[in-house]
Amino acid sequence: MHTCYHPALRAGLQALPEDEALHVVRVLRAKEGDALRLVNGEGAWADGEVAHVSKRSCDVRVLEVHDEGMTRPEGLVLVVAPTKHTDRFEWLLEKATELGVEAIVPVWTARSERRIEKHERWDKVLVAATKQSQRRWKPVLHPAVECHRLLESHPWLATRAGAVAHCMDRCEGVPERRAWTAWQSDHASAWLAVGPEGDFTEAEVRQFTEWGAAPVHLGALRLRTETAGIAAVAQFGQG
Amino acid sequence: MHTCYHPALRAGLQALPEDEALHVVRVLRAKEGDALRLVNGEGAWADGEVAHVSKRSCDVRVLEVHDEGMTRPEGLVLVVAPTKHTDRFEWLLEKATELGVEAIVPVWTARSERRIEKHERWDKVLVAATKQSQRRWKPVLHPAVECHRLLESHPWLATRAGAVAHCMDRCEGVPERRAWTAWQSDHASAWLAVGPEGDFTEAEVRQFTEWGAAPVHLGALRLRTETAGIAAVAQFGQG
Repeated sequence: MHTCYHPALRAGLQALPEDEALHVVRVLRAKEGDALRLVNGEGAWADGEVAHVSKRSCDVRVLEVHDEGMTRPEGLVLVVAPTKHTDRFEWLLEKATELGVEAIVPVWTARSERRIEKHERWDKVLVAATKQSQRRWKPVLHPAVECHRLLESHPWLATRAGAVAHCMDRCEGVPERRAWTAWQSDHASAWLAVGPEGDFTEAEVRQFTEWGAAPVHLGALRLRTETAGIAAVAQFGQG
Repeated sequence: MHTCYHPALRAGLQALPEDEALHVVRVLRAKEGDALRLVNGEGAWADGEVAHVSKRSCDVRVLEVHDEGMTRPEGLVLVVAPTKHTDRFEWLLEKATELGVEAIVPVWTARSERRIEKHERWDKVLVAATKQSQRRWKPVLHPAVECHRLLESHPWLATRAGAVAHCMDRCEGVPERRAWTAWQSDHASAWLAVGPEGDFTEAEVRQFTEWGAAPVHLGALRLRTETAGIAAVAQFGQG
């Protein structure tokens, strides 16, 4: 059954948002009476039925909205430097969503190139992946912030355990790195910072550790930013 | 330092393969005396120095080839149905390489669409990712085979533990699925079969279990083929 995203989901007769309606009408060629699943990305879901279709719109009849457990489950928040090429970052967003990431905080770092925030476009990737993976909760996409202002902009991060992944064998004034897979197994909720192409600077890593983050590594091979992010999400909560 | 792929790596003065030479000359603009790292993708590596460059060629001087431990380390072999869109499959190849996959066996399944094998192109993706991730061993890319002939074509798979990931809550004649993350922790080397968009058929899953494969799942969310493959590789060997 097809899943539609409907942020303003409620019981009763209602129009689908335009993007969703176009997809349902043109791609799925839905007819009156067809069954649909609807999610609002904030934990609520409902079964619906197509009530009326026109060329560009689709009305659905929703009987009952299920919204048990309306507190977003805590998991892994990825603090990550957007890659130079946006397609790599969009893949990370898609895959991290499928694999259950809780939230994404894009950060601009000293070595970030092309600081172009495509918030709306990135959010669409999250919507599509949320539907595809049948998640109830769309990951929260925060606005991009300067790395050195992370905790100022997101003081809530200080309330949970954090880690910073970097590729340096030695980093002045910073403890040895532990394996991420070992570190994460002690935490049911956490955040992880993943750097840009070229890695975080030593100063950035020190700043993270001053905020209480644990330095970690993601194994012996050199991972691209988006691979590191995907692997970390896939490994989080796995024993 | 830049890493070059040179399948016929040996000590002495030698020309780089054309693709590599073009990259070194045009992109890196290498000059005589520049240092390079060379790998043959089969475990050997060497430090080299640019001896001569022209518009389309590059000669390197290699002092000593290191080839300790020339047995390919066993790990995870991914038996996977290529996706309909080749870019998704290429991403899987790239990411699986970065994350340490040992070998890839593409399989054509009952629900495979567009059976186009791009062996040469796929191998180039593996070469690029091997260099990028600083692996010594390029993953082995086997020719694509029909799923029902997998063991006939690859009898060596029968010598190690195997698993088959599927998305069915029930599959006639097949034991309940275990979590992949739990199953893999008992195996230092293994193979895992990941199905196409639309999943393996029940008959295919039964066939895998008759070959001794354990049915597994990759969590509660619905993963795309390439995401399942990447996640499985990232999780393999992690506690």
